[in-house]
Order: sequence, then C-alpha cells, then structure tokens
Amino acid sequence: MVSMTGKKENMLPASVAIHEVVLRDGIQNEPVPVPTDRKLDLLDGLVRSGVGRIELSSFVNPRLVPQMADAEALWERVERRPGLLLSALVLGEKSLERAIRCRVPHVGIFVSASETHSLRNSNRTVAEAAGEALRLIDRARSRGMQVRAGVMNAFGCAYEGAVPVDRVLGLVDRFMTLSPDEICLADTSGMGYPAQVGEVIARVRAVAGDVSLSLHLHNTRGLGLANLWEALRRGVAIFDTSLGGLGGCPFIPGAKGNIATEDTVHMLHLSHVATGIRLESLVEASRSFESFMKKEFPAMILHLPDSGACES
Amino acid sequence: MVSMTGKKENMLPASVAIHEVVLRDGIQNEPVPVPTDRKLDLLDGLVRSGVGRIELSSFVNPRLVPQMADAEALWERVERRPGLLLSALVLGEKSLERAIRCRVPHVGIFVSASETHSLRNSNRTVAEAAGEALRLIDRARSRGMQVRAGVMNAFGCAYEGAVPVDRVLGLVDRFMTLSPDEICLADTSGMGYPAQVGEVIARVRAVAGDVSLSLHLHNTRGLGLANLWEALRRGVAIFDTSLGGLGGCPFIPGAKGNIATEDTVHMLHLSHVATGIRLESLVEASRSFESFMKKEFPAMILHLPDSGACES
Repeated sequence: MVSMTGKKENMLPASVAIHEVVLRDGIQNEPVPVPTDRKLDLLDGLVRSGVGRIELSSFVNPRLVPQMADAEALWERVERRPGLLLSALVLGEKSLERAIRCRVPHVGIFVSASETHSLRNSNRTVAEAAGEALRLIDRARSRGMQVRAGVMNAFGCAYEGAVPVDRVLGLVDRFMTLSPDEICLADTSGMGYPAQVGEVIARVRAVAGDVSLSLHLHNTRGLGLANLWEALRRGVAIFDTSLGGLGGCPFIPGAKGNIATEDTVHMLHLSHVATGIRLESLVEASRSFESFMKKEFPAMILHLPDSGACES
Repeated sequence: MVSMTGKKENMLPASVAIHEVVLRDGIQNEPVPVPTDRKLDLLDGLVRSGVGRIELSSFVNPRLVPQMADAEALWERVERRPGLLLSALVLGEKSLERAIRCRVPHVGIFVSASETHSLRNSNRTVAEAAGEALRLIDRARSRGMQVRAGVMNAFGCAYEGAVPVDRVLGLVDRFMTLSPDEICLADTSGMGYPAQVGEVIARVRAVAGDVSLSLHLHNTRGLGLANLWEALRRGVAIFDTSLGGLGGCPFIPGAKGNIATEDTVHMLHLSHVATGIRLESLVEASRSFESFMKKEFPAMILHLPDSGACES
C-alpha cells in the first residue's frame, strides 16, 4: 500500500521461514484426539500451501501427552519430500533415542530459563537440564541431525515472573560451545513485550554471533505480533507459528495460543516479506482443521469474509 | 524486566493518553441494550481506574444506532469532573447542534478517506464531507469546543481495499487550515499494518507539524498492538482504545474489535510508558461490564488468572 522507506530501522528481512508447530504445540493440549491419518492430512494441507518447515511431533511420555502417542507411526508414514524440513521436539535421552530410530532430520532441544518451570517440566534444575541438553545436542549432531537449541521462558515465567536476561545469555553461551544450527528463544508463558524482545535479541546476538536466531511466540496477552514486528525489524527471520493460533504448554498455566500462522503470514506479506506460503490455501487448511477440532480457533483473518486478507 | 537502551529508535513517549471509546464505538453495534444508568456506572468505573479521556456518545440518528439514543440524557446526567476530558463524536450539522446544546467540551469530527465508505456512511463524497467537516470544525471552535479532526479508513477500506496516502494527507492538510487541537488517524476497517502505519505517521507529521497526533486502531486482523507499537516508537502519545476490546463500525463489514484498553495499558506499563491508569481496577470494571453484556470480550489479559498482568 505504501512503499518502504530506505531508513535502516525499516530494513526488514526479504524473506522469513515459518516453522509450523500446530502438529506439536498446537494440538498437544487439545481434548479432541487427532488420529494419525488426520495429522497426515493436515500436513499435506500445510505442504500444499508452501509451508517448508514442520514440527511433526515431540517424543514424550504418551501418558502425559496422549496426542503425541503416535509419534513413531507418524514418522514411519510421513513422506520425506525434498525442500521440506521435518522436525521433532526432543525432551531427554530416551526421547532422543526414539527420534534417532525414527530418522528425524532436525530436532529442537530446549532448556527452561526458569528454575520452577524446569523442575516442573523436566524434574531438573536449570543447570542439570543444561548439562543434559549439551549431551543431547552432541549426540544428535554425531548422528547427523540438524539441531535447534532453545531457551524456554526466555521472556518471563508464569510461575516466577521476570526471568533474568543473564540466565538466557548463559544458556545461549553454553549452547554455542556446540555450534548449533539455530538458537531459538521461546516465550513459553506469553509474557514477552516488544521493548524487552528487542533488547533480549540484541543481547543474544552479541553472544550467538551469526548463528540463525528464531523466535517461538505465544499470543497469551495479545502481544504476539507486536513482538514479532520488533523481532523482524531486528532481522530475525525464523518464526514458530501454529495454524489457527492453536497451542499452549500443558505445564504452563494460561499459556494458550501460539501466534497464528495465517495472521503472521498475512502480516509478513503486507510488509513485503516473502514466506513462500499461499495464504488462501493455508486458510483453507485451517478452516478444514477448525471444523474437525470443533472449536473456534483464535486466528483472526480466518474468520473474516474472504479470509480478510488484504494483500493488494 | 530489562532496561531500555538509549538508542533513538527506542525512545518511547514517557506517557500516553488513553481515549476510551467503549461507551461509543464499543457498544454502538452490540445487541444488548445498555441503559443510561449502566453507562454511568461504567463511566464511574473507568474514572476510578484513572482513565482521563472518555468518548461518552455520538450524536447520531437513534433509528440507525439505538445504543446512542440516550445521548442527551447521558450528557445531562454525567458529572463533569476536573481532569476528565469528555468527548463526543459529531457527524453533521444537526449532530453538532445537539452537542452544543449538551455543552460537550470536546468533539471528534471525521471524514472518510474512502469514497465508497463516505457515500455509505454519510451520503457524501469525500470532497463534500471534507467541506462540511471544515464548517463543523469552524463552528465548534467558535463555540469554544476543543476539536479532534480525524480521517476514517486512513489505512485501508473494507470496500475499496488500499486507500492512497495522498488522500489522507490532503484531508489532514485541509484540517490544518483550521488549527485543530488534534489530528486523529482511524484504522476503521482494521486493515493497517506496522510498516504502513509508520510510513503514514511520518508523512502526516510532515503536514501536521506539532499538532498532537492520535490513532484509532482496530484489531480486526490481529495487528492492533503491533501497529500501536510502531506508532509509539514514532512518538504518537494518544490512542483510542475500548474496554474489553469491544467495538466495530456498523457500516464497515468485519470491522469488529477496537484494541482493548486493558491489553494496551498492560503493554504500555511493561514498556515503562505511564498512562495514569490502575490496571487491576480497570480489569475489574471490564469484568463487571462483561458479565452485564453476556459475551466473552476479545481482550486477552481479562481472561487470565490474576488478570495476567505481569508488571513486575
């Protein structure tokens, strides 16, 4: 609608990679069971829309997260297509062994920056969890996997409130000793705000150098896309999003709602940032999955006439 | 949580004025009738929370907008308190005469930048509507009223799509001949996006000079607070918000949801921008009004435990 100015502060990345997490974070806490077939249908819809990175599952205790119980079946059946990066979240040694057996090409390995969340989520202190994460990263890389190393609750914790940025930097610093392919900062509790997101990114960059930086944002307090905008202005070019805005960590109170893939893509395209995704096709996949899940998804443009997309 | 950097791009206004529109834009299209007594209760709740600017009504044909039919009664009964700016939206000559009789101290006078919306909303072309607005501004000022002169659909139109920024600038330029107290840019259709909002603000500033600039944002596509963040970074310090995120123009398809006062205040306080508003008290007023309206409001922090405010 208007052309971008040439000022440095408005120089956005030319393109962004969407790391789609609906099949993992999106559904893990939903009461309607999603059968393997429906997951594969959803994946097909995403791939047909041009989504290039998909988090297919975590490997977690099926008693704790029943939606992830079919991880092995899913990885067995999924088609491995050129140009599509399939990923899994790995949560410990047994989890990584399962991922290795499933020939997962890309794993996310995360440590919480909050002691309380770390103890509740993994029964380990932050220091213990960091030590284990380093061993996992090392083993995953030795098996030829790509690794994103991440910090959960990097912008605040629902249990603890503020999280010292030095704790985030300390974890990133330890990850960097193993040269991960990507550093991911997760706003697990949805407590980040733009000024803080900008500041933390700048400080993480100083530690992580040229390694790719990604953000995993939740819209718990309505600030997801404001945070994304600030990160985008600072050159971040990989974002986790969930179709429909589904999502939420089962161990974080109130942590519902990843930023919605369709709303994010809509915003990026308006900003002349390419994603490789066809928005109309994505909205179609989202509407189909919304019918299946029998709940109104939080995504906004999904519920507007003609998907509300105004890309012209 | 983190201190602000000293870089110019992060220099935010020290304080922001919230122009609360729930009593006008918020309820005008809601099916549950709000009696005058309930409006005055709501106003009391807002004032007790520290809100300093309240749009109390429009003066409009009561057959078209029944919720505004009690405008005279409301202005007769409302207490005029020192430090509280009460405002009304004025939509034509008869409307202004009603406001004058009600001794309204502050009026908003708007012209749409979209021909289609202008014709549908006021039965006038943009040029005709601009001519009338200038006469209204002149008359309002001659009666000692403060005037905000505004442009509707400044960032796009649900009927027309893109709105040329030159049309917005042309309207602002004409307003400036009458030295309004404030220029307001309204994203009536909720189609603005951050890069555009920043660009339009910069260009309007070049025309409007030192006159206060305000933004009226809708969250129709989830971008309300991202747009606010970009505007804030560019020094805008007056924002229209609606308690609970209620709102929507009855003549714009899909234009639901002003940005929510509580989510906006929450974001501003985290960003160390003062509003004079006590968030907990505001959330209390919103919860009470939500019960009365018998619908779940779109505001986010409203529905989190302990209001989800994380100001510490």
